[in-house]
Amino acid sequence: MKKYVLLGGAGYVAPKHYGAIKQTGGDLIAILDPHDNVGILDSYFPGCQYFREFERFDRFCSGQDIDYTVVCSPNYLHDAHCRFGLRIGSDVICEKPLVLHERNLDGLIQMCNITRHRIWNILQLRLGDACKKAREELTKPGHSNYVWLGYTISRGSWYDYSWKGNLEKSGGILFNIGIHLFDLLLYLFGPSYKIKTWRGGKRYQEGRIFIGGYGGYDVGILLEIAQDLPPKRELLIGNETFDLSKNFTDLHTESYRQILAGNGFGIEYARPAITLCEELRNLG
Amino acid sequence: MKKYVLLGGAGYVAPKHYGAIKQTGGDLIAILDPHDNVGILDSYFPGCQYFREFERFDRFCSGQDIDYTVVCSPNYLHDAHCRFGLRIGSDVICEKPLVLHERNLDGLIQMCNITRHRIWNILQLRLGDACKKAREELTKPGHSNYVWLGYTISRGSWYDYSWKGNLEKSGGILFNIGIHLFDLLLYLFGPSYKIKTWRGGKRYQEGRIFIGGYGGYDVGILLEIAQDLPPKRELLIGNETFDLSKNFTDLHTESYRQILAGNGFGIEYARPAITLCEELRNLG
Amino acid sequence: MKKYVLLGGAGYVAPKHYGAIKQTGGDLIAILDPHDNVGILDSYFPGCQYFREFERFDRFCSGQDIDYTVVCSPNYLHDAHCRFGLRIGSDVICEKPLVLHERNLDGLIQMCNITRHRIWNILQLRLGDACKKAREELTKPGHSNYVWLGYTISRGSWYDYSWKGNLEKSGGILFNIGIHLFDLLLYLFGPSYKIKTWRGGKRYQEGRIFIGGYGGYDVGILLEIAQDLPPKRELLIGNETFDLSKNFTDLHTESYRQILAGNGFGIEYARPAITLCEELRNLG
Amino acid sequence: MKKYVLLGGAGYVAPKHYGAIKQTGGDLIAILDPHDNVGILDSYFPGCQYFREFERFDRFCSGQDIDYTVVCSPNYLHDAHCRFGLRIGSDVICEKPLVLHERNLDGLIQMCNITRHRIWNILQLRLGDACKKAREELTKPGHSNYVWLGYTISRGSWYDYSWKGNLEKSGGILFNIGIHLFDLLLYLFGPSYKIKTWRGGKRYQEGRIFIGGYGGYDVGILLEIAQDLPPKRELLIGNETFDLSKNFTDLHTESYRQILAGNGFGIEYARPAITLCEELRNLG
Repeated sequence: MKKYVLLGGAGYVAPKHYGAIKQTGGDLIAILDPHDNVGILDSYFPGCQYFREFERFDRFCSGQDIDYTVVCSPNYLHDAHCRFGLRIGSDVICEKPLVLHERNLDGLIQMCNITRHRIWNILQLRLGDACKKAREELTKPGHSNYVWLGYTISRGSWYDYSWKGNLEKSGGILFNIGIHLFDLLLYLFGPSYKIKTWRGGKRYQEGRIFIGGYGGYDVGILLEIAQDLPPKRELLIGNETFDLSKNFTDLHTESYRQILAGNGFGIEYARPAITLCEELRNLG
Repeated sequence: MKKYVLLGGAGYVAPKHYGAIKQTGGDLIAILDPHDNVGILDSYFPGCQYFREFERFDRFCSGQDIDYTVVCSPNYLHDAHCRFGLRIGSDVICEKPLVLHERNLDGLIQMCNITRHRIWNILQLRLGDACKKAREELTKPGHSNYVWLGYTISRGSWYDYSWKGNLEKSGGILFNIGIHLFDLLLYLFGPSYKIKTWRGGKRYQEGRIFIGGYGGYDVGILLEIAQDLPPKRELLIGNETFDLSKNFTDLHTESYRQILAGNGFGIEYARPAITLCEELRNLG
Repeated sequence: MKKYVLLGGAGYVAPKHYGAIKQTGGDLIAILDPHDNVGILDSYFPGCQYFREFERFDRFCSGQDIDYTVVCSPNYLHDAHCRFGLRIGSDVICEKPLVLHERNLDGLIQMCNITRHRIWNILQLRLGDACKKAREELTKPGHSNYVWLGYTISRGSWYDYSWKGNLEKSGGILFNIGIHLFDLLLYLFGPSYKIKTWRGGKRYQEGRIFIGGYGGYDVGILLEIAQDLPPKRELLIGNETFDLSKNFTDLHTESYRQILAGNGFGIEYARPAITLCEELRNLG
Repeated sequence: MKKYVLLGGAGYVAPKHYGAIKQTGGDLIAILDPHDNVGILDSYFPGCQYFREFERFDRFCSGQDIDYTVVCSPNYLHDAHCRFGLRIGSDVICEKPLVLHERNLDGLIQMCNITRHRIWNILQLRLGDACKKAREELTKPGHSNYVWLGYTISRGSWYDYSWKGNLEKSGGILFNIGIHLFDLLLYLFGPSYKIKTWRGGKRYQEGRIFIGGYGGYDVGILLEIAQDLPPKRELLIGNETFDLSKNFTDLHTESYRQILAGNGFGIEYARPAITLCEELRNLG
C-alpha cells in the first residue's frame, strides 16, 4: 500500500486528491495546512495526522518511509514543497502550475537527479473526453485550422481577496486558470507558438496565438472570471465543439492511476505551458 | 428581503447557514473569515463580499442596513461577535454555544436592552423528529424514568490540533458537542438538575445526572469523540430508542424559519445548558 | 490622569508613543497587536493589558472610560482603527498617514461630528527645529524660491517583504515616507500646488512640484529607500540647508503635549498632503 | 568570514545574536520570522535577506554554503529548527532550552552523527562573573552547603498571552526561565540531584533540591514572574551573595567567541538541566 503525505489539505482541491488516493488504494498518513478546517479528512482517512506548521510536519515526515508527497498548496509554494518531497525521499505529485517561473524547472530537474526521485504533474485535462475527441478530430483530413477556446467561470469577489487573486501567490489568472488550457492547446496542436495579440487584466485575458508552427492553428482565446455569468468551457475546432466541462470530476483519480502505472507527466511535460504563461504575463 | 452578514464563513458549519439563508429567501451581503477558502459562497451568494480582517468587515457593515448578523466563528469569539452584531444595529443569530461562561449572558442581555436588538440561538436539536417523538413518549403515563444518552462521533487526530481541541477556544467537548445534548435533556426533562457523578477528558465525558427535580429522571450520559468507531447518537427512555442522527441536515433552515416567524430561542433559552456545562467543566 | 489604549503595540513606532504617553503623565491600559513581541511594555506600563485579537480588545475597551485611542497599526488599518476609537467614546491620536484615500477623510469627519470626538494626526516634522528655522528663513526678504528636498534612508531587503513594502497595506513609499515631507512642504510653502514632473518606483520617487501658487516655490524632490547609502534628510531653500534628521526623537512627546494642550492637528491639517500623495500615486 | 542564517529574527533575544555575530566578525545572510517587524536588522546587517515563510527560507538556505544556523525561535520549534540547520549542512547555535523533552536530545545526537555537524547550546550564565566567583567560593574549605537561589523578574500581563505563557510553546516558566538557573546549579554543584519538595504555577515555582549527591548542597529555589516587583537575581552560598544580574548583556558575544574557538557547549552539556526541568514539570 502506497504511503502519501499531502501539503495544502484544507484547500479547495484537496478533497479531489483525498478521493484519488483512496480510490487507487493508497494511504494518507499526514497533511499540512495552516488552516484547521480539515474535518473532511474523516470521510477518507480518519487515521491521518494533521499538522499546522511546516516545521513539525517536516520533522514527522523525515522519520517515515513515504512513497508520494502530494502538493496542492498555494501556487507560489509548489516549488518549495516539491523540493521538500524529494528531500524526504519520496516522489512528488504536484498540482498545476508546477512552478510560476520556467527557470525553476531546471532547479527541480537537478534535484530530481540528485535524489533519484520523480515529480509528476497533474495535467488532468489531457485525460478528459473532450481532449480525446479533439485529438480524433485532428486526425481527420480537412479539419479546420481555426480554433476558439472560450473559458468563462464565475467567482464572487472573495476570489480577488483570496490568495488566488494575489498575483504573487497564484501567478494570476494566467497561471491559476490559463495553465490548464494552454497545456491542452500545446498538447493538441504542438509546442511551438507565436503570440499575435494579447491583453488582459485581473479577471480576463484574451488574444490570438498561432500554435503548431507552419501549417498550424490560428487560436483565439478568452479566459474570463465573471461574477454572475453561467460557466462555459468550450473548445471549437472549426465548427466542432468540445465541451471541457464534462467528465471533469474523476480526472484526478485517473491521473493517479496513470502515475502509479508509470505513465505520469514528468517535469518536461509541464514546461511548454509554463513558458507560454510566463511570456503572456510579461506582455500583460 | 432580509439582509445578512456572517462571521466565520470558511468554517465547517457555515454552509448550513448559507443554505438556510438562501432557502428562507434572505440575502447574504458580506462574510468574514481569516481563512480564504470560501469558494463555496459562489453556489449560494455570488455577489457576497468577503473580508479577511475584522476591522475592514466592521467598517463595511457599519455603513449598511443589516437585519441579521450570523455568528458561526470559533466559540470563544461568539460573545464578541454577538456584541458586534448588536452594535451595528442588527439582530443576531448565533451558533451554539452562545457563550463559554454563563456570566457573559448577563452582559449580552444588557446590550440587547440598550440596542433594542435580539440574539437568537441555534438550538436545532429541539426541532428534530427525535425530540418531538421523545416529548410524545413523555406524555404517556407509566413511561420509564431511566434515560440513557449515548453520543459517539468520530474525528481524526486533526480534531485535537484544531481550535475545536483547544479548551480555551472551544470550551472543550462539553461546550463543543455536549451543549447540544444538555440543551435537549433540560428541554425534555426540565431545567433543574443534580449531578451525581461525572468524569471526563479531552475526548470523552460521562456521568449520571438527575434531571427534573423530584420525580424526575435518572440520566446516564456518555459523550465520546472516537477515532475509528461508527457514529452513534441515541437517546433511550426506558426501552424506547430515539435516533438523534435522523433529520439532522435541514434543522438549520427550520431554525431560521422559526426565527423569522418570531419564534426563535432567545438568550434565556440558552442559559440552563450553559450553566450545566460550566458546572461539569469545573468538575472535570 | 488620561487613559489611553493603543493599536499596533508591537510595531516599530509604538515605543515612541509609549514614551510620549509616559512623559506626558498618561496611563496606557491596553494594547492590541497580533504579534506578541511586546515585552518592551514592561519598561513603560507594566500593568497594561495585551490583546492579540481585535474582537477581544474591542470588548475590553467598550467597558472602559478611555480618553485617547492611539493608532499606530499598519497604514491600511488607520481608517478602521480611528473609527473604532471614536466609537468607544475616545479622542484619537493617529500616526501618519491618517488615511490612504482622501475621500476617507470625509467619512471620518462625519463620524467625528456624530460622536463629538476628535482625531489628532501626528505631524511631528512641523514641530521640529528644521521646520522652525525654515519658516524663519522664509520671512526674510529676498530668499530663494528654489527648493530641494532630498530624503534618502536605508532599509534592507526586509522592507520589501514587510507590510511597508506592500502597496495595498502601506500605500507605498509615497504614503509611508513621503507623506511626512509633503506635509512639511505644503505647510511651509502653502497648500496649493502644481505637479510638473513625477516618476517613481517601489524604492524611489522623484519629480518637481510648484508649490504655493503664483510667486510660489519650485521644489525638486527625491525620496529614496536605499539599501546601503548613509541616510540623508535635507531641505535646501536656495543655499540654506535645513537638516531634517536633527531633533527627531522627541517630537512624538512634543506632539502629545500639543494635543493635550488643545493644539493638535485635526483632520483638515492632514488633507493637503494626502491629496497630493494620492495624485502622485495615480501618476506613478 | 563565517556565514550565518537565523530563525526567529523578530523576537526579543534576536538582537543579542545580531550583536554577537557582528562583534565576532560574522556575516548574517538570511533570517526567518513570520512577524515582519525586523527593521533592527539595518543596524547590523543591511544586506541580510528576510523571509516570512519557512518554505522559502529553506529553499534559499539550501542553495547556500552556510557555517552556522542560529535558532532563537519559540522554544517548541527549537528541535525542528536544529534539524533544519544540520540538514542544510551547517553547525547550529541554539538558544536555551535546546529541547522541551529530554528524549529529543537523542534524536538530535543521531542526526549530528549522520550529518557530521554539531549543535552548540547558549548557556551564557556559565560564562558570567557571578558563576566564576561562585566557583571560586566553592574551592574554599569550609564553605557553606546551604544555597539559596532567588530569581524574580517582572513581566506584564502580555507575558501570559504571548507564546511564552503558553505551556506547549514555551515549556512554561521552568523551561523558559528556570532552565538557565538549573543549568547553573547543576554546573556548580554537580549533575546528580534529589528533589525534596516542589510546587508551582504559571508564574512561580519553588522548592528544595539536594544537588551534588552525598556531601552535596541543600538548595532552596524560588522562581517568580512578578508583575510589579523590582527584579532580583541572586545566588546565596551560605552568606555569600552572587548577583546574577551583572555582566549579563555581553554574554552572548562571549558565547559566540567560545563556540568559534571550539569551546562551545555541545548537546550533552544541556542534558542535566533539561532532565531536571522535565521532572519538575511532571511534579507541578
